[in-house]
Amino acid sequence: MVPGPWSIEWAGRLDELAVESDVLRDNPLGDPHRRPVWVYLPPDYEESERRYPSIYVIQGMTGQIDMWRNRSAFRRNFPELVDELFADGDVPPAIVVFVDCWTSYGGSQFLDSPGTGRYHTYLCEEVVPFVDERYRTLADREHRGIAGKSSGGYGAMVTPMLRSDLFAGLATHAGDALFECCYPLEFPRVARALRDKYEGSYERFWEDFRSRPALSQKYDPELVNAYCMAACYSANEDGSIDLPFDTATGELLPEVWERWLAWDPVRMAPRYAEALRSMRAIYIDAGTRDQYYLDLGAEAFRRVLEELGITDVFFELFDGTHMQIEYRYPIAIRYLSERLQ
Amino acid sequence: MVPGPWSIEWAGRLDELAVESDVLRDNPLGDPHRRPVWVYLPPDYEESERRYPSIYVIQGMTGQIDMWRNRSAFRRNFPELVDELFADGDVPPAIVVFVDCWTSYGGSQFLDSPGTGRYHTYLCEEVVPFVDERYRTLADREHRGIAGKSSGGYGAMVTPMLRSDLFAGLATHAGDALFECCYPLEFPRVARALRDKYEGSYERFWEDFRSRPALSQKYDPELVNAYCMAACYSANEDGSIDLPFDTATGELLPEVWERWLAWDPVRMAPRYAEALRSMRAIYIDAGTRDQYYLDLGAEAFRRVLEELGITDVFFELFDGTHMQIEYRYPIAIRYLSERLQ
Amino acid sequence: MVPGPWSIEWAGRLDELAVESDVLRDNPLGDPHRRPVWVYLPPDYEESERRYPSIYVIQGMTGQIDMWRNRSAFRRNFPELVDELFADGDVPPAIVVFVDCWTSYGGSQFLDSPGTGRYHTYLCEEVVPFVDERYRTLADREHRGIAGKSSGGYGAMVTPMLRSDLFAGLATHAGDALFECCYPLEFPRVARALRDKYEGSYERFWEDFRSRPALSQKYDPELVNAYCMAACYSANEDGSIDLPFDTATGELLPEVWERWLAWDPVRMAPRYAEALRSMRAIYIDAGTRDQYYLDLGAEAFRRVLEELGITDVFFELFDGTHMQIEYRYPIAIRYLSERLQ
Amino acid sequence: MVPGPWSIEWAGRLDELAVESDVLRDNPLGDPHRRPVWVYLPPDYEESERRYPSIYVIQGMTGQIDMWRNRSAFRRNFPELVDELFADGDVPPAIVVFVDCWTSYGGSQFLDSPGTGRYHTYLCEEVVPFVDERYRTLADREHRGIAGKSSGGYGAMVTPMLRSDLFAGLATHAGDALFECCYPLEFPRVARALRDKYEGSYERFWEDFRSRPALSQKYDPELVNAYCMAACYSANEDGSIDLPFDTATGELLPEVWERWLAWDPVRMAPRYAEALRSMRAIYIDAGTRDQYYLDLGAEAFRRVLEELGITDVFFELFDGTHMQIEYRYPIAIRYLSERLQ
Repeated sequence: MVPGPWSIEWAGRLDELAVESDVLRDNPLGDPHRRPVWVYLPPDYEESERRYPSIYVIQGMTGQIDMWRNRSAFRRNFPELVDELFADGDVPPAIVVFVDCWTSYGGSQFLDSPGTGRYHTYLCEEVVPFVDERYRTLADREHRGIAGKSSGGYGAMVTPMLRSDLFAGLATHAGDALFECCYPLEFPRVARALRDKYEGSYERFWEDFRSRPALSQKYDPELVNAYCMAACYSANEDGSIDLPFDTATGELLPEVWERWLAWDPVRMAPRYAEALRSMRAIYIDAGTRDQYYLDLGAEAFRRVLEELGITDVFFELFDGTHMQIEYRYPIAIRYLSERLQ
Repeated sequence: MVPGPWSIEWAGRLDELAVESDVLRDNPLGDPHRRPVWVYLPPDYEESERRYPSIYVIQGMTGQIDMWRNRSAFRRNFPELVDELFADGDVPPAIVVFVDCWTSYGGSQFLDSPGTGRYHTYLCEEVVPFVDERYRTLADREHRGIAGKSSGGYGAMVTPMLRSDLFAGLATHAGDALFECCYPLEFPRVARALRDKYEGSYERFWEDFRSRPALSQKYDPELVNAYCMAACYSANEDGSIDLPFDTATGELLPEVWERWLAWDPVRMAPRYAEALRSMRAIYIDAGTRDQYYLDLGAEAFRRVLEELGITDVFFELFDGTHMQIEYRYPIAIRYLSERLQ
Repeated sequence: MVPGPWSIEWAGRLDELAVESDVLRDNPLGDPHRRPVWVYLPPDYEESERRYPSIYVIQGMTGQIDMWRNRSAFRRNFPELVDELFADGDVPPAIVVFVDCWTSYGGSQFLDSPGTGRYHTYLCEEVVPFVDERYRTLADREHRGIAGKSSGGYGAMVTPMLRSDLFAGLATHAGDALFECCYPLEFPRVARALRDKYEGSYERFWEDFRSRPALSQKYDPELVNAYCMAACYSANEDGSIDLPFDTATGELLPEVWERWLAWDPVRMAPRYAEALRSMRAIYIDAGTRDQYYLDLGAEAFRRVLEELGITDVFFELFDGTHMQIEYRYPIAIRYLSERLQ
Repeated sequence: MVPGPWSIEWAGRLDELAVESDVLRDNPLGDPHRRPVWVYLPPDYEESERRYPSIYVIQGMTGQIDMWRNRSAFRRNFPELVDELFADGDVPPAIVVFVDCWTSYGGSQFLDSPGTGRYHTYLCEEVVPFVDERYRTLADREHRGIAGKSSGGYGAMVTPMLRSDLFAGLATHAGDALFECCYPLEFPRVARALRDKYEGSYERFWEDFRSRPALSQKYDPELVNAYCMAACYSANEDGSIDLPFDTATGELLPEVWERWLAWDPVRMAPRYAEALRSMRAIYIDAGTRDQYYLDLGAEAFRRVLEELGITDVFFELFDGTHMQIEYRYPIAIRYLSERLQ
């Protein structure tokens, strides 16, 4: 039988902090620039004086930091799993940093965009120094990794490509990749929903969306997701957003779509080959029944790495979907921690 | 745009407490007998010296108290909604008590059963006095109500029938009722799953279930639910559990099924007519697309009340499913609070 | 590659005939009493003078005889499969009789009912003699069998129970059985559909149904099926029909439901034990993913036979659903033909 | 109540004929070159000596001519609907020609391809003269139309573009168009199915597919469809077939995908503007819930016509899916017949 389901005996410690961000001040969506950060310290942190590798953990679309505490029936949540992992003396200890890049469109893809804000810079230039200043981290790229699922897996792939001076390890669980296999499948549904319910107007959708319980209507997920991705991948300098499809028909607009593809990890990899070759740890997984076909994206990312001569990677397609796969995350944390000691 | 999504400015206060239960000590599943209780105090509680009605809130199957803080994307959780409700000066204040009757089968139906434990007694004889002793409640039936969704809605229907000396108000959101329309639909699926995956044996299922991420397999919900309901409705004095169907075929076993039906609120109502007539507030709702057809159960409960001459009830079937309908709960809290002042 | 898909070279012959029925004249639905009958004669019929066993084939709900020629993509239809079967010298020849018991509610369950007509009598007293008079059948029970799928499987189970003087072989593919696992699952859906679309009135449903393309609305199948089954199982002498559930809530009405159960093959079997023991061939199969859980019905029927001491049966649960399983039928035809020579 | 469901009293006549095709002889798949053709003659054909417009009707993917007689429950099939239409004196009469362009991959898209055969030429150069020679047609473009659904709708769009000397009217029901919204949605599913079940090999799929009941496995439809479309759109002169995606990942291969797009009616229309402007009748419809989003294709086709100055078109998006919409076809037949008199 399951013991007390409400909590665990913590072996380590979870600090809740906040970063007063400069780069997010005046972000285009008016989202908060004071942002929560959680820092997990492994069991021996307080007694020892050693320094530790650090692993940054980022969330999927619509994720906000307090969701890490969401309880699924009969399960441990991710911070608890992290503590259980490091309570096991067999796993080399690391500091785990929980970062929040939520926006009112649902997310930021951990990029800088005039459509959402400078979340890439926030993460790299503000959160990393903030943590390194306050905790005994091994404060260099060789001992720093990043991990996430879904859009968080996306961020975990692209952030180290862009900033290999900061990160030498990455772990992607079902990360957005091979864009033609995940995003365009939603565009026809968006076009249809706009036609049938919102007179073809995204403005009307947002108006409606904000007037009622969020995500309670059938097409809400696609409508929010396509818009948010456009805000991340194809916003213009003035903050306006170009959609990669004709909202009346779903017809792909090649010029905008190319701007999206430029951000596809599978297409980015060759341009960032050196950065990727310098990684000390690359972990890739996805469920074979992933609703967004991100298992195909995982395989495509693995293949492009292989073409670049990068074969020392962890790779697994497991039996599962896109949902409730938090039990996979400790496998990656262990992998990163071992490699980044 | 949505403001800071991580928290609200609390107008009232949420106390987290624990009850050392006597009646749950030595419960048959070995579940904790020290149980969490949360008590929400409305905004003016600290300044005033007045006494308040109290509303007990109970959860659905697999619910445990910390899940109340689960964050859904772009939404407030229920404690936040409660605070927002009472921050509105228009709503008469009440104390809201969050009770936990989780078991390692997922729940208790808020009944006393040799299969799970004496959760009905725990709620009525331990939690209610515990709260009345510690807070300025109006400590009598006239000012005490109970509310919940799904299995929590079930508990909110039957607890006041059994203990109208304690409760004079009830609110059920999609509460389990009209058992033939909700439970037996799962029995064939259970039989099939046992046949195809567990050699016909529930023991093998539980063994497997506890060895891997919970609820990650297709038929897990039905398998857990049917067993848990049997533990609540048709356990024997020695703690053994009778299932109401032949696990090899799904064939209904009338004698056991009758024991379940004896606990159906629709069948119980005539036996508890006086208790129900004494209610000061009855609130019933459900979504017209409820996956378990509990909209039909709601209507059946309303009808039997009507036959008993009880027509002063709130009743609404709303456009929605069984899931993520926490935005309905404040409607009931307001209704109960107004009626129980 | 597939050869000519439009037809086969027939080895045997398919005669299309019509029976002028007396017992169906003035049937309560005003359905035709002149009914089509097809008779398949095996390859050597014309050259030989021998007599053959006969196998009667009946259809599922909404089936009408011309549907046997429906073409599924890349497949042979059933009459073609029968001919291919008997073209194989390895299979002992039989005459196969295709019977039509369609009604304007979709079917008759091959029973006599004041709600639909006397289709059981039609089949046994009119079609059988009609065939025996015109073809060289072995015109006795020992050499006569009956087969069908779904409602046709139902008819194939109950007809020989009722008339073991006529039939000594039966084959049921996913036949309606263990009624609690197949029918009541539809009742809540019917109640909901009537509530949401037809102001609670079955009359309005039928009016609407007949005014537009049939079966084009989401709940049409359940609405038609539940009504038709009631017309077969619980019609009254005056032709009126009692439904086994309250159409407002889905609540089961035990008295009417008992009338249905009296027609459940699993419940009938002990009453007709002698008839069943006299069978020379019993074939039972169903798909493990049958949408109506008729695999459970198959197993329950097998079990009750076993309890009656009848164990010489063909039994198989195959990997498949309820749909497009015509490739199973020749297995049964062969089995019956071998046993009924 | 529905009258005799097996047949109607025919007002007109349906002739079943066969064309001995020269252009299909030695087709690459070894499919039959003797092909069935059905010709429907309106009620007054035999008494009159007049000449009639002709409307060619073509089928969707996997369609073969005898499927026109498939019976859906409680419904008339299409030839019966045609007869009922013309039995109504209000509709100007036409000859309706049912053409079969089935291949062992499921279809031909009514194009000439080294991957399947010269079905476009067969239709235009063999079937049309065959009919004009044998029946009193108005044997010129002004009085000849073509109609179909799904892939048949596709053929009805492109055939008159390619051969406006032969056809001056077209009707497309849910015709394949706006390829990015219908086809690529299947590619990830194909990649996944090949990976999980066929070791990545299409050959193994075909081997398996031909060894068992066709279309009985979950991914069969996508696997067959993607391959067949490639055989139609991107076969090479030597008969080999290029798929537009990497079968290991689903990654789109732009060069091959461009070859597909060159056959998209929406992209073809500007190149065939004159042909389209010369049409006397253009009918477009689709269901708003079409599973393949062909309602979006319909709208995109309408829009491109509008951009070309072609606005005298019938256009309707109706409440329906992609399936069982044969009740829409007579609307188009009437429209064409009226316009092509």
